[in-house]
Amino acid sequence: MKIICSKLNLVKGVNIVSKAVPSKTTMPILECILIDATTDIIKFTANDMELGIQTEIEGEIIDRGMIAIDAKIFSEIVRKLPENDVTITTDDNLQTTIVCEKAVFDISGKPGEEFSYLPVIEKEDSITISQFTLKEVIRQTIFSISDSESNKLMTGELFEINNNMLRVISLDGHRISIRKIALRDEVNNKKLIVPGKTLIEISKILSGEADSMVNISYTDNHVVFEFDRTIVVSRLIEGEYFKIDQMISNDHEIKIRINKKELLNCIDRATLLVKEGDKKPIIININDEVMELKIKSQIGSMNEEIYINKEGKNLMIGFNPRFLLDALRNIDDEEITLYLMNAKAPCFIKDDEESYIYLILPVNFNAVS
Amino acid sequence: MKIICSKLNLVKGVNIVSKAVPSKTTMPILECILIDATTDIIKFTANDMELGIQTEIEGEIIDRGMIAIDAKIFSEIVRKLPENDVTITTDDNLQTTIVCEKAVFDISGKPGEEFSYLPVIEKEDSITISQFTLKEVIRQTIFSISDSESNKLMTGELFEINNNMLRVISLDGHRISIRKIALRDEVNNKKLIVPGKTLIEISKILSGEADSMVNISYTDNHVVFEFDRTIVVSRLIEGEYFKIDQMISNDHEIKIRINKKELLNCIDRATLLVKEGDKKPIIININDEVMELKIKSQIGSMNEEIYINKEGKNLMIGFNPRFLLDALRNIDDEEITLYLMNAKAPCFIKDDEESYIYLILPVNFNAVS
Repeated sequence: MKIICSKLNLVKGVNIVSKAVPSKTTMPILECILIDATTDIIKFTANDMELGIQTEIEGEIIDRGMIAIDAKIFSEIVRKLPENDVTITTDDNLQTTIVCEKAVFDISGKPGEEFSYLPVIEKEDSITISQFTLKEVIRQTIFSISDSESNKLMTGELFEINNNMLRVISLDGHRISIRKIALRDEVNNKKLIVPGKTLIEISKILSGEADSMVNISYTDNHVVFEFDRTIVVSRLIEGEYFKIDQMISNDHEIKIRINKKELLNCIDRATLLVKEGDKKPIIININDEVMELKIKSQIGSMNEEIYINKEGKNLMIGFNPRFLLDALRNIDDEEITLYLMNAKAPCFIKDDEESYIYLILPVNFNAVS
Repeated sequence: MKIICSKLNLVKGVNIVSKAVPSKTTMPILECILIDATTDIIKFTANDMELGIQTEIEGEIIDRGMIAIDAKIFSEIVRKLPENDVTITTDDNLQTTIVCEKAVFDISGKPGEEFSYLPVIEKEDSITISQFTLKEVIRQTIFSISDSESNKLMTGELFEINNNMLRVISLDGHRISIRKIALRDEVNNKKLIVPGKTLIEISKILSGEADSMVNISYTDNHVVFEFDRTIVVSRLIEGEYFKIDQMISNDHEIKIRINKKELLNCIDRATLLVKEGDKKPIIININDEVMELKIKSQIGSMNEEIYINKEGKNLMIGFNPRFLLDALRNIDDEEITLYLMNAKAPCFIKDDEESYIYLILPVNFNAVS
């Protein structure tokens, strides 16, 4: 194989596919990037068997062929080359020579045939949304997946297509995050549970442009994201996702309008007094026109008042401050609305259209604190 | 005690003195910042018994007094307060209240009297250099101190005042870094061994402005740096520093002019093939007009050529690439001069005025590689 690509294009390609190179694996071939120049197009592929990424690289093919090269070494080398054209040549012994200006690297590769290609997916159905929307939706929900493997379903997000609406849902047992997007085209109803890791990695690759689209196609076992010149294939998580709609009620006794930034900064300050792993709740005392927030720990205590616009009764309720912070940091609205019932029922933060809904369970507290 | 300071001034003061708060200590009082408002000036002090920093804070003293507050908590609190005036009040039980707008923090302090004040130094002699110069000189030499406590002298830098010149010297057994600065005023000859940690921390506090001066005064046991409204006091390392001048010879058989950036980038690329802890040398093959650099490891091999301007014989010599990198990264010249003797003698990188001298010992290598 002999190909010539600019350093820039190589770096771009390596950065994209590296997201699917496993950090630990018992199969050394998976630590490689496959450089495939067997057709008229140069393609880089990486695959950790759950998640696979393939991207096309602009460049010239002098001799067709393919080679698998250790992803870490290859990525470090191309990154440090001068900004110029790079020639990559392999010989019959899989010895790979990378030449750029006067710099010559020699490293050994592995046979491309040993590489696990991406699974070929018979696309049954698909939806199209912008890169911007997909990236935002992931950011706004990914924080409330669970990282514990003890409940596999919670490590993923539900992509629920229903009546030409896409709902993306995550939950970890203490809170639920939901974002809703209208789809442009008619599409069949479908539920996919996409692994959180896939979404985290894809979100790093997405340019986030509003006028560049992502095609999302799926079968019962796989989901395929296609955008720019990149294909991301991921296994789906098997199983029946939680019945969300039963948990979301529209009942409320208290409705509060509050400035998001003031609330966010106040809780952020309060968490200073809570050490990592400590479960001190923040106590919210809701009165007419004013909300008092209090926290008390071994380190000290804090209290602060924020003006609010309230409908309904007064209430004292406690929350894990980090759960409130996570939700508030991912809402773009300046003014937000909180809906509450009583000290034991969840708090909802949502907009009128329910384009976002954050449900957070309260925690018990001693009324004295 | 009751004082009012802007959040900004508090943050500035805390950032400065925090550099002298020990990360580990058996004396809890040392984990505190002392707020001293017993005179007309508000002063913050921290002291790890080796290094002490005191800085003046602009603000209003309502009631005189002092208090020691946990540095970590205090610094986190002031950082997260709204951008406004902050009132700090203490009561008879050392309970400290920090109020900013509607946020109220309560934490407990410790008696200021328990705090270790900075030692009072009878200043014998002093020099004055700009903040810019001091910061640069530290950056350009600090990388070649040793972090091993087995030879205490090597963990510091020699500040040698001789004939109105200041030489700052560090060495770690494999290399020596020297910077030389002309002093403006007449001053007695003196040698100080300043702990590397002191220099690292002071360098973080220095604004680095060329028209702001640092006064450096010293006794046999202490050095005091005074700048802006800050005083840094540090113990000196006791002992007799290494005899540097015997190691620096002006003899050479080969003199090479080379572009610094080309050499730096080439060695930077070569080190990709060397794993952390591995001691693979880079082999430099000096010929007329061209220098060939080669490295070979388990991962692969690299070679590259750089045009040079050479006087003297040809030579093949090996170096630890990281030592070359450290020196090259800290030289500002575009073109540099290397002086060599033979494969077993050190390489010198220096300018004509010897305002900087970097000595690097070569390493053995098998001529075959």
